Amino acid sequence: MARVTIYGASESGNCLKTRWVAERMGIEFDWHEMDIAAGDTKNDDFLAINPAGQVPCMVLPDGRILAQSAAIMLFLAEGSDLIPEDRYDRAKMMEWLFWEQYSHEPAIAVRRVMVQRHKLPEDEIDPMLMQKGRRALGVIEMRLVARDFFVGDSLTLADIALVAYTRVAHEGGFDLTDFPAVRAWIHRVERELEIDPASP
Amino acid sequence: MARVTIYGASESGNCLKTRWVAERMGIEFDWHEMDIAAGDTKNDDFLAINPAGQVPCMVLPDGRILAQSAAIMLFLAEGSDLIPEDRYDRAKMMEWLFWEQYSHEPAIAVRRVMVQRHKLPEDEIDPMLMQKGRRALGVIEMRLVARDFFVGDSLTLADIALVAYTRVAHEGGFDLTDFPAVRAWIHRVERELEIDPASP
Repeated sequence: MARVTIYGASESGNCLKTRWVAERMGIEFDWHEMDIAAGDTKNDDFLAINPAGQVPCMVLPDGRILAQSAAIMLFLAEGSDLIPEDRYDRAKMMEWLFWEQYSHEPAIAVRRVMVQRHKLPEDEIDPMLMQKGRRALGVIEMRLVARDFFVGDSLTLADIALVAYTRVAHEGGFDLTDFPAVRAWIHRVERELEIDPASP
Repeated sequence: MARVTIYGASESGNCLKTRWVAERMGIEFDWHEMDIAAGDTKNDDFLAINPAGQVPCMVLPDGRILAQSAAIMLFLAEGSDLIPEDRYDRAKMMEWLFWEQYSHEPAIAVRRVMVQRHKLPEDEIDPMLMQKGRRALGVIEMRLVARDFFVGDSLTLADIALVAYTRVAHEGGFDLTDFPAVRAWIHRVERELEIDPASP
């Protein structure tokens, strides 16, 4: 595939997902670093590219635009072993991609932004976020207790999507002590993706 | 495809999406009606089927389970014209499926539950929901102002996913007067899916 441009913020797990997939697929890209706190995603230039005002957002060589981290990952990984060939396994991977965006990210990533970017004290953070986030971690733990990866027996987009915010959940105040399968899986996926465990 | 079982609540747009796709695809299914308010999704029998405690949830003839409305739709519609063949169009459809679950449903469907099921007075509803929901309706209006369907020139899963809660947005207090393209598209999709406009 010819060179693409990715508008992304390096502190955002959603953006990193697309970078990791592009790197693993050997797809060349220009990374356009966006400063969300400075309003880069809400200015007119960027809204002309993505009216939803969200990153990541990818521009194809012909100028066409694609948004939403999971849609970008699916596009970049098409035809590779990051997407299972088996119809049911592929559907199961989709299930986890949607679950992550609905039931995981809105608690675990959102709490991290409040703690890390906005420096909110604990008593100003909606306690539902901790509750919902711990419930999500419990669902992951249950899934991984007897398997190495979310779907099948090798890395898929489901692992990449879910590891992005799970590996930095502690930055949002989540304690992973009670989730040993989750911790083992994080290290496994970081090794697969050659992510430095100490990187943000 | 052999007969499947769908656990769903008829008042839930997420559940209806899967029923509409099964009907359009001519796939036979047993509909297992769930009463969310009565706790049907949180009892042990159902949690054994879907640990996430969410509907819709589909059981295949061989007993395997699939959750998440969009994943179920994608599974049921595989190989049909509800999923574009073109790689970019298909990715664009995925973009809208993820956007719906992240930026549309959590405002428009959630506010409807608060108004309709919980009968909350206006001043007890987080004003952010109205703001976020209207922003989502504006994004849809912009997309549809010069096109009949979300992707390409015929019905895809993106339209089905987005119409489910948009057509009942008024039940959550959203006024569609300012969104003429959205209203025209709702009628178009209802006709395509043979949905009675008066049905919930």
